[in-house]
Amino acid sequence: MTISAAIVGGTGYTGLELLRLLAGHPQVSLEVITSRAQAGQPVSAVYPNLRGHVDLAFSPPDPAVLAGCDVVFFATPNGTAMEMAPALVEQGVRVIDLGADFRIRDLGVWSHWYGMDHACPALAAEAVYGLPEYGREAIRQARLVANPGCYPTAVQLGFLPLLEGGLVATDTLIADAKSGASGAGRVPKPHTLLCEAGENFHAYGASGHRHLPEIRQGLERAAAQPVGLTFVPHLVPMIRGIHATLYGRLRDPAVDLQAVYERRFADEPFVDVLPPGSHPETRSVRGSNMVRIAVHRPEGGDMALVLAVEDNLVKGAAGQAVQNMNLMLGLRETLGLQGISVLP
Amino acid sequence: MTISAAIVGGTGYTGLELLRLLAGHPQVSLEVITSRAQAGQPVSAVYPNLRGHVDLAFSPPDPAVLAGCDVVFFATPNGTAMEMAPALVEQGVRVIDLGADFRIRDLGVWSHWYGMDHACPALAAEAVYGLPEYGREAIRQARLVANPGCYPTAVQLGFLPLLEGGLVATDTLIADAKSGASGAGRVPKPHTLLCEAGENFHAYGASGHRHLPEIRQGLERAAAQPVGLTFVPHLVPMIRGIHATLYGRLRDPAVDLQAVYERRFADEPFVDVLPPGSHPETRSVRGSNMVRIAVHRPEGGDMALVLAVEDNLVKGAAGQAVQNMNLMLGLRETLGLQGISVLP
Amino acid sequence: MTISAAIVGGTGYTGLELLRLLAGHPQVSLEVITSRAQAGQPVSAVYPNLRGHVDLAFSPPDPAVLAGCDVVFFATPNGTAMEMAPALVEQGVRVIDLGADFRIRDLGVWSHWYGMDHACPALAAEAVYGLPEYGREAIRQARLVANPGCYPTAVQLGFLPLLEGGLVATDTLIADAKSGASGAGRVPKPHTLLCEAGENFHAYGASGHRHLPEIRQGLERAAAQPVGLTFVPHLVPMIRGIHATLYGRLRDPAVDLQAVYERRFADEPFVDVLPPGSHPETRSVRGSNMVRIAVHRPEGGDMALVLAVEDNLVKGAAGQAVQNMNLMLGLRETLGLQGISVLP
Amino acid sequence: MTISAAIVGGTGYTGLELLRLLAGHPQVSLEVITSRAQAGQPVSAVYPNLRGHVDLAFSPPDPAVLAGCDVVFFATPNGTAMEMAPALVEQGVRVIDLGADFRIRDLGVWSHWYGMDHACPALAAEAVYGLPEYGREAIRQARLVANPGCYPTAVQLGFLPLLEGGLVATDTLIADAKSGASGAGRVPKPHTLLCEAGENFHAYGASGHRHLPEIRQGLERAAAQPVGLTFVPHLVPMIRGIHATLYGRLRDPAVDLQAVYERRFADEPFVDVLPPGSHPETRSVRGSNMVRIAVHRPEGGDMALVLAVEDNLVKGAAGQAVQNMNLMLGLRETLGLQGISVLP
Repeated sequence: MTISAAIVGGTGYTGLELLRLLAGHPQVSLEVITSRAQAGQPVSAVYPNLRGHVDLAFSPPDPAVLAGCDVVFFATPNGTAMEMAPALVEQGVRVIDLGADFRIRDLGVWSHWYGMDHACPALAAEAVYGLPEYGREAIRQARLVANPGCYPTAVQLGFLPLLEGGLVATDTLIADAKSGASGAGRVPKPHTLLCEAGENFHAYGASGHRHLPEIRQGLERAAAQPVGLTFVPHLVPMIRGIHATLYGRLRDPAVDLQAVYERRFADEPFVDVLPPGSHPETRSVRGSNMVRIAVHRPEGGDMALVLAVEDNLVKGAAGQAVQNMNLMLGLRETLGLQGISVLP
Repeated sequence: MTISAAIVGGTGYTGLELLRLLAGHPQVSLEVITSRAQAGQPVSAVYPNLRGHVDLAFSPPDPAVLAGCDVVFFATPNGTAMEMAPALVEQGVRVIDLGADFRIRDLGVWSHWYGMDHACPALAAEAVYGLPEYGREAIRQARLVANPGCYPTAVQLGFLPLLEGGLVATDTLIADAKSGASGAGRVPKPHTLLCEAGENFHAYGASGHRHLPEIRQGLERAAAQPVGLTFVPHLVPMIRGIHATLYGRLRDPAVDLQAVYERRFADEPFVDVLPPGSHPETRSVRGSNMVRIAVHRPEGGDMALVLAVEDNLVKGAAGQAVQNMNLMLGLRETLGLQGISVLP
Repeated sequence: MTISAAIVGGTGYTGLELLRLLAGHPQVSLEVITSRAQAGQPVSAVYPNLRGHVDLAFSPPDPAVLAGCDVVFFATPNGTAMEMAPALVEQGVRVIDLGADFRIRDLGVWSHWYGMDHACPALAAEAVYGLPEYGREAIRQARLVANPGCYPTAVQLGFLPLLEGGLVATDTLIADAKSGASGAGRVPKPHTLLCEAGENFHAYGASGHRHLPEIRQGLERAAAQPVGLTFVPHLVPMIRGIHATLYGRLRDPAVDLQAVYERRFADEPFVDVLPPGSHPETRSVRGSNMVRIAVHRPEGGDMALVLAVEDNLVKGAAGQAVQNMNLMLGLRETLGLQGISVLP
Repeated sequence: MTISAAIVGGTGYTGLELLRLLAGHPQVSLEVITSRAQAGQPVSAVYPNLRGHVDLAFSPPDPAVLAGCDVVFFATPNGTAMEMAPALVEQGVRVIDLGADFRIRDLGVWSHWYGMDHACPALAAEAVYGLPEYGREAIRQARLVANPGCYPTAVQLGFLPLLEGGLVATDTLIADAKSGASGAGRVPKPHTLLCEAGENFHAYGASGHRHLPEIRQGLERAAAQPVGLTFVPHLVPMIRGIHATLYGRLRDPAVDLQAVYERRFADEPFVDVLPPGSHPETRSVRGSNMVRIAVHRPEGGDMALVLAVEDNLVKGAAGQAVQNMNLMLGLRETLGLQGISVLP
């Protein structure tokens, strides 16, 4: 069986990573990749790493062509997928949105953070949040999957075992998160120039970041109660990788955190709980769909410390999208996602 | 008046930075810089940036020569200063130790973390902790100053106003700290190779770091009570800079944090409180003795969030040592410390 | 004596570096810095490294204010200075253009590379090329100085002794040059994003670069004959620094290159000829106005190999402009230019 | 058919890259990886990117075990393979040496550069130089392959078409080469620390580098005459990648270089000649076995300019070794070598 796939909006880093993964996927035929700005350009002229691997040229989006595909990925700016997805879903195409249009259940909250009204509330209500480690069955049945954001994936996976087990106080969770610059995208902005982001480190969005409501929604679902969360993102002078440093106060310091985490993720193909005392490195998952997690209880006290790393463009975006596609289409979940990180 | 100065152990990054600062200090004459390993080598052959600025060669340590100086800086591995300092202090030389030998008041704690017995407990008891923003007068009178560690400087300065004012709960303070690789020194180690530390980010010492007891000691002094602190350092793929992200739960969320910080540091020449909503960048203090601080209250809740940056080799080491020297010798505190950060 | 200075177009990296150098210059009072885009903004809000050092705000350019200054620096896009400079020169203001408007003597060549007609041919003919190591006296007398480009400074200084002495064949000179990303400026462009320029290395402009005619003009002046030059620039994943690797075939392999270079630059305050066998590092001149040069004759053959490094924003732009200002206004040439490179 | 393979000396970057490639090779079973220093340690404890992909532990080298393998790779310091290889070859094991022991035909030259006598001159005479693009058939028949050095691979492939065709003067070839820091290996050395190699650029070995005789030998073989070569390597502040900028003076400037290169490499699976006007980027081949080449004739003159990029650890080491293994064992040449570069 060969799956025919399309990418809408393929010129950003998320689209590029989807291209790389789908080009190497043994059961996918990439039929079309759209870009108004680059229409007519061969993909490999823009991305020389794809020379010999992808023969397509960018084309303007054509609804009829998209409707003929088995699955359509949206790697578009926020607000695009909600306009185009309904017609596709209607025609039986599986849709995976890598943007934020369908991630937030409460559309009032969504409008507040994304600054527009939602174009299709009904579909937003139906959309399934695509975090396989928390809701794999629903994804299998979904017509439309909202692929999680990069920070939300790492933070939720890191906190899940603590919240599901009711192991920490939920009123003062802290997520101190650090991301490489690719999370800011490929559109040139002053603060992501090499001369601005290089040899530099700083926080941003400390008073509020769009990923906060998405994370809180996920944590509250897992905790089955309201959650107080402080989320502080930082920009790291590197290209790929997210490191989430998570803090929660244990209700019972005697709990065996290591065992809790190993048990929770024992069957997960893309979550790797490291041995006690470990410090996961972002590079250990570069280009890979793995999340690696270590848990600590500093000085044997009552603070649970969770260290989680992912590649923001893979498990934090395109890789998770492919994982979701595999689930939605009945393929083996790990197909096309088993490349080894290049290190160093 | 010209101060004659010596550096013991000048081949690491701290010694190099001292060289740079003292070479540009208008009232210091650098008389000697010792290194057994490099003895005989011109300083400028090892550090080409000093060609034309420093004409000395490294020499083996000679107690008589050191005793003839007004001030001696120790930029040596832990354990060296405590052997050599007593004789110098005895002879009236002001001593500033950039290592850890005299930082910890409780010598049992010190021995636990540094793995040796202390060679001169009496002098350890007399030594003054060299954080001018918290104890300037004692430094002025000191014969021996224990120059603070790099992380401890940023974390203490960031927390001071909260703790002195009793504004936060002291049982769950969190310091999530990030440092460039120069904090690990110039002795080649696998994890600070460009190929290991570059394009990578990870925590380390999550279960306990030598700077923890030093930080806790300072925080407890400021809070006048025991303090519960979680301290997690991380390695950033850059050369210089520390970013401390500090979390404390406010006793009264209505407090005007911005005003508290501005007031506390109003007269401090090397602490700059940024306008509300700021995110200090490590590069803004690169090569400079400034600490820049911003305070936030995310989503207007009860969490105080403090962002503090310093150059780990300047305010976190050599610059603070020069600041201490200025105080000990009655010079203007800012002398030789007013270069502007090179940006970008 | 205090010099009143103005910067026109102060929001790029060249303008920022001028700000840093002039703020630290003991005999300059910076009166005005213009920017239409940032007008009204305090300089220190845009560049936090200047907090406490520069109190000006950006203002729109006002001819009357500029005419009241002793010296005006243009750090503007090509084409601006040639419009504004004539009136200032007329009124007795010394003008230093850090752009390319007055660098090329042959205005036909200039128009070819810069794509416009020249607005003031007469002033272009009068302008003095501001490379002090080759024409210091003319600069002292100049009303208008054309500050050299970054690549041209390193390449010309590296080749000068060979060409002035007629030591190499002039038909096959090769300049293989490498620059950090700050040479591309502060306006966001795709190829200078950290995610594009980081962990990457490539040549550019191999078929022709704007600096080629400027370099060739200088080399031909020094050689007093036509010169055949291949110039290939490359982008290095770092912020500051240019490394020029220069190749020329010796007419007489027996010549003592080291002595030739040491003699030629013996009295130059900003050219440092390194000992035999050296390999200059770009970081050794970061933030400094020095050029460091090493000469080799690989395997004792007939190829002269010259390695030259500079900071593209200092000796390659703002530092050289200050050096020229010092000369034009009768100040000590090195004033304000003696800071030590921050290393590491 | 499954090939049983062993790696001797697996703890450096070359060994690690071999591990990654062999773990993903569909017809190889990695039986043993030796390291005296790390014996007993699981491979995945040292290299977390291999968790879940490689289950071996390092073991001390055992001749009997190695003799049972189909192929043995030596990723050892120079001097080791020549001691151990003869016995293995004797027993019918195919041997691929990634070190320099068998690369140089003239053992006098070899001894001069590597500072020791050769242990097995007979085998050195039999060894086949493993550059498939120049001698594929001999590799297929070889018992022992000398895998080329990283610089030599890029420089030879870039110059081959010019020399085979007699298109350039052979007396003044220039190879200005630039390498990421992984070429210097994983043993900690001062100059490859992030704090030394980061934000810095410099040449090294300008008076002579071990790869020079290897390159010259290859160029002379292709040119069938003596060759005058200047080779200057530089260290780039990045992890992986080599960029060779090659200069040769054309005998007939009218030659169509683009056509010459396209024709020469038309059937080569791992050499990609880019369209006219291109500038290959090192990142476009990161983690891949491709070499990408562009040819220019600057200003339409008589200088041929060749730009060639490779990943020094793949086509410059481990990837080429796997390519050679495929050839020696009759497998498809590209097997296990078709991963797509991760970009950005």
